[in-house]
Amino acid sequence: MHSETTVGDLSEKQILARIAERTGSADQALVGPGDDAAVLRVSGSLVATTDTLIEGPDFRSEWSDGYSLGWKSAAVNLSDVAAMGARPTALLVALAMPNATPIAYVERIADGLREACEQLAPGCAVVGGDLTQSDVLTVAVTALGDMGGRAPVLRSGARPGDTVALAGDMGVAARGLEILFDRFDGSAPDLSLLDDAERYAVERQLRPLPPVALGLAAADAGAHAMMDVSDGLALDATRLADASGVTLDLDSSLLGPDPRRALGGGEDHALLAVFAGDVPDGFRAIGRVLERAGDALLVDGAPFAGRAGWDPYRDWTGSSGSAGQ
Amino acid sequence: MHSETTVGDLSEKQILARIAERTGSADQALVGPGDDAAVLRVSGSLVATTDTLIEGPDFRSEWSDGYSLGWKSAAVNLSDVAAMGARPTALLVALAMPNATPIAYVERIADGLREACEQLAPGCAVVGGDLTQSDVLTVAVTALGDMGGRAPVLRSGARPGDTVALAGDMGVAARGLEILFDRFDGSAPDLSLLDDAERYAVERQLRPLPPVALGLAAADAGAHAMMDVSDGLALDATRLADASGVTLDLDSSLLGPDPRRALGGGEDHALLAVFAGDVPDGFRAIGRVLERAGDALLVDGAPFAGRAGWDPYRDWTGSSGSAGQ
Repeated sequence: MHSETTVGDLSEKQILARIAERTGSADQALVGPGDDAAVLRVSGSLVATTDTLIEGPDFRSEWSDGYSLGWKSAAVNLSDVAAMGARPTALLVALAMPNATPIAYVERIADGLREACEQLAPGCAVVGGDLTQSDVLTVAVTALGDMGGRAPVLRSGARPGDTVALAGDMGVAARGLEILFDRFDGSAPDLSLLDDAERYAVERQLRPLPPVALGLAAADAGAHAMMDVSDGLALDATRLADASGVTLDLDSSLLGPDPRRALGGGEDHALLAVFAGDVPDGFRAIGRVLERAGDALLVDGAPFAGRAGWDPYRDWTGSSGSAGQ
Repeated sequence: MHSETTVGDLSEKQILARIAERTGSADQALVGPGDDAAVLRVSGSLVATTDTLIEGPDFRSEWSDGYSLGWKSAAVNLSDVAAMGARPTALLVALAMPNATPIAYVERIADGLREACEQLAPGCAVVGGDLTQSDVLTVAVTALGDMGGRAPVLRSGARPGDTVALAGDMGVAARGLEILFDRFDGSAPDLSLLDDAERYAVERQLRPLPPVALGLAAADAGAHAMMDVSDGLALDATRLADASGVTLDLDSSLLGPDPRRALGGGEDHALLAVFAGDVPDGFRAIGRVLERAGDALLVDGAPFAGRAGWDPYRDWTGSSGSAGQ
């Protein structure tokens, strides 16, 4: 922490000025922060999604520095825009913070938001937001995107015969969370204690790298259906199968070194898509689409009996903050 | 409360189904809730804004039933869209709730969101959202609007010689809050104990009625500048004056029966606008725009010495939840 100044020491205007210095500007913004609302150019239909990170169930401040929190808040939303086949153009950020939050932490949230946009979705930036006082640190982000004349890629378009494909990590964020709980419960993670694979897993848990640009590529390649894999591949694949009225049969030999974690682990923010023909660069085939017959999800032709992802209302416990794998 | 079932008893899918039954559909939605993101038709440039209500600083559940909370969450955001001269088209709602929240309360939030849209901005509805577990009940709404080919009405366009005008209530929501603190601290408000004016004030505090349609009317009438009055007329008029580089001189005889409360009281969600010519129907003149000379805000030609609105980071205290007037 670079300063003892907290948000409680500053006026809303002063806090907003500190944030605005750091958030950059969006290419399609006609009016940015500072008026009643932002105004954006839209060249096609608009995509809009919102996702909130809350201290406790979604992050812990001893593990997530402000930068990681800002990054993840942006990344999980950019991923949902990408999953429609759209280009992210703008974020709105509602920050609710205890008065004791150091302003330096807030500045790092802004840095993380900006750099996630720069790296994952160039041209996108924060265009507006809201500050509120709360006992629970909460970051609610809304991401907007532009279809640019494309048709949105829904969850419901998978057809028998399609190839199921995935871009991004499988089970890595869940592995990272496991390491954080096992090795750093109650303390800041010391990455020097970890091997390369462990460090990568922890970094992906804290700062996911959704393959945002591949969402556009999938749309351009004619993906029949697509979605963001945030609650575990098994649960999300089941949702896509249900929305499409088909069965997905995944091949466990294509699910990496730990298929069970790949199927059950949440928060990877990979893209799951189905294609009639060739799978575009960046995606890898992991199964095929069958006529619906009984189960929505098969693995190697058999119903998947494992734990299928996580549901915040059933799985979360305040004491452990566990995002179960 | 109609049921003892709480959100902790239900899965995310079940909660979302209960909400989706009640939120209606937006005229411009191409894809509504249920996919990774909503997709909207936009006929002009897009307006986007976000505002959060948090139990404690922004509402108290003993005063706000779910319906009022949903209504207010929508209304405060619709007002910001209107203040740009845009037509609201869609809301995204991020709900963070304790597990003990009755599902009936959540359903009433959804009812309030829907009915506020129906009454204040027909055609607008919830198109997406997010559910999270939190110890603090938090409703973060993002409102989207369509400029429909109009230019946005900014805060910065006021010119000397313009007439300052206002549509909506002045100081009424603050009066309502005062009554709630004085008469119903810690209990549900019994409106039968109040006279008509008191009841109206409490109702406007709990369920504001921003003049959303008049935002479009002001834009069509050529308003030079406009903003939502949420933090008190004096503070918001000062902001408009600063953004425009002018001085606003308000006439206290045009500020209703209690000019001090009109100037200081927050949360009315009125529209403050300036016009070169006639003031359109629904607005009333309250002052004039002068060349900037010293103070941003004058009342009857003299610098305004009263308390100028409220700032959540300086004024709020956890124990009183006071939105100061």
